[in-house]
Amino acid sequence: MEQIEEQEKKEDNTVLIGKKPTMNYVIAVATMAGSDKNPIFIKARGKLISKAVDVAQISIRRFVKAYKIANMTSATEEMKGIDRKTGHEGPINVSVIAIELRKG
Amino acid sequence: MEQIEEQEKKEDNTVLIGKKPTMNYVIAVATMAGSDKNPIFIKARGKLISKAVDVAQISIRRFVKAYKIANMTSATEEMKGIDRKTGHEGPINVSVIAIELRKG
Repeated sequence: MEQIEEQEKKEDNTVLIGKKPTMNYVIAVATMAGSDKNPIFIKARGKLISKAVDVAQISIRRFVKAYKIANMTSATEEMKGIDRKTGHEGPINVSVIAIELRKG
Repeated sequence: MEQIEEQEKKEDNTVLIGKKPTMNYVIAVATMAGSDKNPIFIKARGKLISKAVDVAQISIRRFVKAYKIANMTSATEEMKGIDRKTGHEGPINVSVIAIELRKG
């Protein structure tokens, strides 16, 4: 229970990029900015990393101009998956990105 | 002439991500590291941004372990292109990323 609350608290200022259109995530960022969340994190993994950068750029240029990109970090995460070459199931490495938007 | 030399000098430590396989660009980074280039920049635009992050992660984890990601920056560039929705030719915005690898 505590763990779930912790998770919710953490996600409160985080936009996790998925398969929806880019503008959906820009609106999510703008909504958080409207509730004065600061910082706001945009996170993505794998092929969705490009979309995360688009969301950050569109947000700060057109919707939440008080915010800037304060930091960008990347890492490698191990996931369960199927190797595209061998077809074997096992751990695969995937790149992840976190973009931190801050006011001012 | 001076401009061309300037350009060559600038590109000397930059890997620009294109459509080749990821490992080609990792090898390019490793080759630059082997010639003691420091820093090394990995640059990409649009959908290729995800591949740039993969190249950086694979490089520092497996091939050029003396290097770390020192900085990541993103920006928006205006390009000539065709709007996918309207079919009109004109300026389109594209996100770009630059990942700086540094030794130590």
